[in-house]
Amino acid sequence: MDKFELTILGCNSAMPAHGRFPTSQVLNVSGELLLIDCGEGTQMRMSQYKIKRNQIRHILISHLHGDHIYGLPGFLGSLSHLSRTAPLKIYGPPGLQEYVSTCLRISQSHIDYNIEIVEVALSSLNPLFRTSKFTVEAFPVNHRIPCMGFLIKETPRPVNIKKDAVSTYEMSIPEIKAVKAGQDLLRDGKQIPNEDLTHPRRRARSYAYCADTQIYGWSKDHLRGIDMLYHEATYLDELREQAHTRGHATALEAAELAKRLDVDQLIIGHYSSRYRSIDALVEEAQTVFPNTVGGYDGMIRNIDA
Amino acid sequence: MDKFELTILGCNSAMPAHGRFPTSQVLNVSGELLLIDCGEGTQMRMSQYKIKRNQIRHILISHLHGDHIYGLPGFLGSLSHLSRTAPLKIYGPPGLQEYVSTCLRISQSHIDYNIEIVEVALSSLNPLFRTSKFTVEAFPVNHRIPCMGFLIKETPRPVNIKKDAVSTYEMSIPEIKAVKAGQDLLRDGKQIPNEDLTHPRRRARSYAYCADTQIYGWSKDHLRGIDMLYHEATYLDELREQAHTRGHATALEAAELAKRLDVDQLIIGHYSSRYRSIDALVEEAQTVFPNTVGGYDGMIRNIDA
Repeated sequence: MDKFELTILGCNSAMPAHGRFPTSQVLNVSGELLLIDCGEGTQMRMSQYKIKRNQIRHILISHLHGDHIYGLPGFLGSLSHLSRTAPLKIYGPPGLQEYVSTCLRISQSHIDYNIEIVEVALSSLNPLFRTSKFTVEAFPVNHRIPCMGFLIKETPRPVNIKKDAVSTYEMSIPEIKAVKAGQDLLRDGKQIPNEDLTHPRRRARSYAYCADTQIYGWSKDHLRGIDMLYHEATYLDELREQAHTRGHATALEAAELAKRLDVDQLIIGHYSSRYRSIDALVEEAQTVFPNTVGGYDGMIRNIDA
Repeated sequence: MDKFELTILGCNSAMPAHGRFPTSQVLNVSGELLLIDCGEGTQMRMSQYKIKRNQIRHILISHLHGDHIYGLPGFLGSLSHLSRTAPLKIYGPPGLQEYVSTCLRISQSHIDYNIEIVEVALSSLNPLFRTSKFTVEAFPVNHRIPCMGFLIKETPRPVNIKKDAVSTYEMSIPEIKAVKAGQDLLRDGKQIPNEDLTHPRRRARSYAYCADTQIYGWSKDHLRGIDMLYHEATYLDELREQAHTRGHATALEAAELAKRLDVDQLIIGHYSSRYRSIDALVEEAQTVFPNTVGGYDGMIRNIDA
């Protein structure tokens, strides 16, 4: 249950190609699922990879290019066919509401659960929402059209008191609360340090999603030291100029960024259809940042607690 | 090159399930491709089944339910990524223009070829268009929302003169033209019958697509004796009442219709997601109409010339 697990549903750019679907991924934080982008075929991939779609409560849409949204109407309709009743909240750029409501209206879809769409226009890092399991912050990146990245951080858990400490010191309920809040315990005039009474606090895990974007022109300091960074790497660095013209990054640039930010792990994706194999992209990134993984449809990556 | 070949890209109803995609199919008439309906994932299936999408010049949309149109924006965008320049014409119910243009506008898709959308509101059988290879007629069926069926007939080929007849009778160009037009030949006061001079005229092949519809409430006489009928069979006949309420047909009803119309071959599809296996549906139809085939994603069916 202590998952912090990313599943990639699609990682190609622009259109499906070479068995790679357009962009979509799911982050599972202790059983609560977050869908990030929703390219065409997202719901097929969910069936294939056994994603429990009814556990998705929030969807994040980075930008409105078709390869990130064309799976949304079908996904929303299917949830209704699957008798969903729980509300769903979708965050994305202005225009998302018109897109979704036009598609659902014209296709005369009957949606039996509540969909709330929150249109977000950003100029800097902004908290988006928080659940009991995680917080989501959005930040502007630099693409041809307004585009957001997302930083998801696990909610820090309260510290756990060691069971034998409770019995040894015959702690009262107010004392237990105080120790959980970080205080030391007083017994017979002696101060017992909090760390002797509690298990070490678990590190809060973190993940950032950065697509589509070129490397330059957006602030990245808030991503320093995170556990896992997904960054687009549409092209090899030999096509750097084309990448920039189109608002994209190269594999080398993504790796340089990961190194500069001192993240634990880099996942690249959003590959151009010109690459049948992604091997060269991964190898290029690994020359700079060895802990690079080439994302692929169906890839699952967990960060241990 | 003398194909009259149907490829089923998707044949599930409402949503993808059990490996079956929503409705879409391609008819290849002597190398000219016609796309019928375009559910989500149509373009993925085209890659998988090696459909040459640039040979599609026309798309027919039966109705606006999501499982028949949600693949359209992605398909249109991908054609542009694939550098299409040839124009594309799409026929469908009123509302199709708004759907397509809203999706393409909000996703800021750059479409570099001409898309013409023809909105069709029918009250009876109507010719839709003709190419050098086939004609398309549309007819209203009976669903919950306006919905069309399509009848595609191969254009009759001109008769071919036997080569040895031309040399034996030393026929002139005007004589050849006259014989091709069906006339007999006069030689030495004798009349040589046209059928002695020409190969038999090839039968014009025909295919009709009927989804989504219940059996009752629409005229079917124009489908008598066609070669291949695709008819929806969403449910087993034990759910006949539910089928009618939802504007659908049962496998038994589809078979009874095929028998009554004396068609050569029935293909059923548009299965409810409640059926993991389609065997029972096919068996039910075959009790009444033995030459029934259960459509499946990737099925190819050619009618011989």
